[in-house]
Amino acid sequence: MTNTVTTDILGHQYIGGARSAQGTASFRSVAAASGETHPVAFHEASDAEVDAAAAAAAAAYPAYRQLLPEQRAAFLETIAEELDALGDDFIGEVMRETGLPAARLQGERTRTSNQMRLFARVLRRGDFLGARIDTALPERQPPRPDVRQCKIGIGPVAIFGASNFPLAFSVAGGDTAAALAAGCPVVVKAHAGHLITSERVADAVQRAVRRCAMPAGVFNMIYGGNVGARLVQAPQIKAVGFTGSLRGGRALCDLAAARAEPIPVFAEMSSVNPIILLPQALQGRGEAIANDLAASVTMGAGQLCTNPGLLLGVRSASLSHFIECLQKALAAQPAQTMLNAGMLSNYYGGVERLGTLGGVAALVAGGADQARARPHLFKAEQSLLFAAGAPLEEEVFGAATVVVELDSRDALLQYAREMGGQLTATLMAEPADLRAHRDLIECLEQKAGRLLVNGTPTGVEVCEAMVHGGPYPATSDARGTSVGTLAIDRFLRPVCYQNYPDELLPPALQGANPLGLLRLVNGEQRRGAV
Amino acid sequence: MTNTVTTDILGHQYIGGARSAQGTASFRSVAAASGETHPVAFHEASDAEVDAAAAAAAAAYPAYRQLLPEQRAAFLETIAEELDALGDDFIGEVMRETGLPAARLQGERTRTSNQMRLFARVLRRGDFLGARIDTALPERQPPRPDVRQCKIGIGPVAIFGASNFPLAFSVAGGDTAAALAAGCPVVVKAHAGHLITSERVADAVQRAVRRCAMPAGVFNMIYGGNVGARLVQAPQIKAVGFTGSLRGGRALCDLAAARAEPIPVFAEMSSVNPIILLPQALQGRGEAIANDLAASVTMGAGQLCTNPGLLLGVRSASLSHFIECLQKALAAQPAQTMLNAGMLSNYYGGVERLGTLGGVAALVAGGADQARARPHLFKAEQSLLFAAGAPLEEEVFGAATVVVELDSRDALLQYAREMGGQLTATLMAEPADLRAHRDLIECLEQKAGRLLVNGTPTGVEVCEAMVHGGPYPATSDARGTSVGTLAIDRFLRPVCYQNYPDELLPPALQGANPLGLLRLVNGEQRRGAV
Repeated sequence: MTNTVTTDILGHQYIGGARSAQGTASFRSVAAASGETHPVAFHEASDAEVDAAAAAAAAAYPAYRQLLPEQRAAFLETIAEELDALGDDFIGEVMRETGLPAARLQGERTRTSNQMRLFARVLRRGDFLGARIDTALPERQPPRPDVRQCKIGIGPVAIFGASNFPLAFSVAGGDTAAALAAGCPVVVKAHAGHLITSERVADAVQRAVRRCAMPAGVFNMIYGGNVGARLVQAPQIKAVGFTGSLRGGRALCDLAAARAEPIPVFAEMSSVNPIILLPQALQGRGEAIANDLAASVTMGAGQLCTNPGLLLGVRSASLSHFIECLQKALAAQPAQTMLNAGMLSNYYGGVERLGTLGGVAALVAGGADQARARPHLFKAEQSLLFAAGAPLEEEVFGAATVVVELDSRDALLQYAREMGGQLTATLMAEPADLRAHRDLIECLEQKAGRLLVNGTPTGVEVCEAMVHGGPYPATSDARGTSVGTLAIDRFLRPVCYQNYPDELLPPALQGANPLGLLRLVNGEQRRGAV
Repeated sequence: MTNTVTTDILGHQYIGGARSAQGTASFRSVAAASGETHPVAFHEASDAEVDAAAAAAAAAYPAYRQLLPEQRAAFLETIAEELDALGDDFIGEVMRETGLPAARLQGERTRTSNQMRLFARVLRRGDFLGARIDTALPERQPPRPDVRQCKIGIGPVAIFGASNFPLAFSVAGGDTAAALAAGCPVVVKAHAGHLITSERVADAVQRAVRRCAMPAGVFNMIYGGNVGARLVQAPQIKAVGFTGSLRGGRALCDLAAARAEPIPVFAEMSSVNPIILLPQALQGRGEAIANDLAASVTMGAGQLCTNPGLLLGVRSASLSHFIECLQKALAAQPAQTMLNAGMLSNYYGGVERLGTLGGVAALVAGGADQARARPHLFKAEQSLLFAAGAPLEEEVFGAATVVVELDSRDALLQYAREMGGQLTATLMAEPADLRAHRDLIECLEQKAGRLLVNGTPTGVEVCEAMVHGGPYPATSDARGTSVGTLAIDRFLRPVCYQNYPDELLPPALQGANPLGLLRLVNGEQRRGAV
């Protein structure tokens, strides 16, 4: 694919509704498949620009956080419209930058705009406000004052998008949708892997900002390889959303914790998403499971946070048969273009690390051609599950997976007890398997954010009940999710009003209940006036 | 008051239902008023005992977290009964250790047991579970799986109680109630300021553990001056609750953030709880406000987190009159016994620091006699509000307050914009004042966890709508509260179940809705079966 010269791409920062380019022009957009660079150079944000972006977000915050939920809902829906209106040339540019196929990207665009619309529904429903009212008890000794509580946006949020979802988890992705819904202006650090995509999406968001007459600083975006630390340290920033590597996420957490005012970081980082293959399921449908898993492992060239990287079963003839089927299915998969050369290099570094561990045999392997990766299947000895440093829990980002034949049901349970935190844990199981493994299932509940039976963890539904989170190192804070509507909670804090005159209260707490909320009134859920 | 020889006090650790004393006996309970020591020596927990306490909590967690809400509710109510049954000799011992008067402690005991009962009601209501269900859409392309979400306890919690609420914010206080309600076993680090009180309360909790046949490790308690760091670093501990100083809280936050697996710390630390005196209110009822504030400043010898330490008004004749009234009211207050000699020494250190700042005049002052403190009133120049290091925002724990005459309404607004985070912010205001200060009120909402009009911030109601929290440095995480029922949220995390058979789901998510919960089903709040 050749470079498209897109004349409206500037490569300048987005700060408070204006564009700025004080820093050096040092970046270019690179085609995933060919490595060719795009002619427009992107400017690294200067320190002053990073500070200005945080300041613009802070300036927008007081007005933006106080908008009625309906006003923010309309804004999110307008962003959705603008995203949907990005044309086929846009999809072409995303394809060029990421190597992802058109159908996937068209689906992802819909997912991204629908994600905005879903948060608009959350805003109109209003339960995110957590309205609680305890009315005064003047006769009680001591008298109880009138006390009311609801949640407000925590303040400006810094967002570090993912490389692997250039739309759904990037500039206008899940973290941005959740923060904007919560009433928090954002400063996005654009991912170097899809610069033109980022600029096109930022333009779409800016059009929505103008159409809805939002405060100009509600959305800001900066470019650069070394701007993240300064952004996280900017005093105006009150929370961070991040999707990426364990090393990158932990570094941001450490920076945020060391600030004069520490702030929460919601980093989605590292997971091998274990699949537990239980005996009856393997016996009855081992080949079908192998084929499903092969598809899941190779989906999106394996570049998914929920990619199944560890397959566990107790040694048996049917497990051996499953492994043969999986080997055949993975060997038949074509090489795929990865997101960029760095990703490919990391992938091959990861499979090389696995392949050279003592006790690991490669069942499916293969060299790389330019920016295209072959799937890998390894078989590891049980002892490696319990080895120091947990080498099988180190995520290899790409289409690689490791199968382990365990000696016994007890060893499986023991490993589940020792395993680190995961985004997901999946059971391939028949009813008899589930009955026989209650202890294992209870243990997995302590280790993962999402538990599946007879499904594949890839393909994360954006809905009310989703949890895309989990204990460390899957994320930095198991109490949050970065996909689904509960994600808004990360960016809210409760505020309490004592003895406040009705007209000074936020609408969520006013006596007449103008937002029509279900509220916790004196310990009971009620929808009426108070 | 003379020492009571209480023969059943051992001074040993509580670990998994047993007592242990491997460490040296190095602590004694000290009478607040006289400084006399109690004959029983308390043993510092050894490293092995700290580890064993964390391990005992972890061993109890799987069973305890899975109890039905009703079972945990009954346990909390049994603790409440045992607390209420602690006799007058118990109140006498708390008086001896803390110097707090009997009426206050009797009230605090009731507050503490009612806090347990309030969380029992939260458990029975079940909204803390956050049940959400998105039913399968098999016809959709791609099909939507059945996805369900509810919250579970995050794991064992380490609790560092406060010195100033030896019952309501200590061994069986707010953090313990919230953690136990959430399904989290606790390891309490007993406060050195009320050791016998702690042991008596721990015994009461242990009786409840046995009466309810709870897992033995659901409650653990350790003694010692140097055990906190090891406890926070124990890998089994998944969250920390702390009430105390900024220095102590920040140190625990830093330790927790530096762990191999970082964990959240909810530290309630430092606040000067500004009172904004608006002109119409001062003109109409300056003397009454002065008297109310004098009572609030000296309540509990000023040893309250919500003690008003900073009074702000714009220069006027009525502000001058208010200051004269406050000076008279505070000067008339008697000296009070403080919690311990260290507290008294810190208090006098704090008032000395204030008194020697350039631009500060002492209006009410006085020396200390043994463990008794006199109230202090200072008047500071406006420039100190804006001085580097914010010297007027450094909390002086005790009955001291600083009044500032500001030059203008603009200076007041400017200070509100620059002020650090607070637990509370209070407006003394008439309706006309409120109308004239909308911008100020909006700004305060960004700075405090609780906003009051015409009240005093001391006397924190334990209810559904309370927020005892606020932006740093008031707390380490503005998204939590340590008083009121929302406190349970700090110790919960969401878990998602995809395509799970009904009988494997937690009761909160089962189709028949056996807990009778209000659940978010396909985006609508419903109480029925699914």
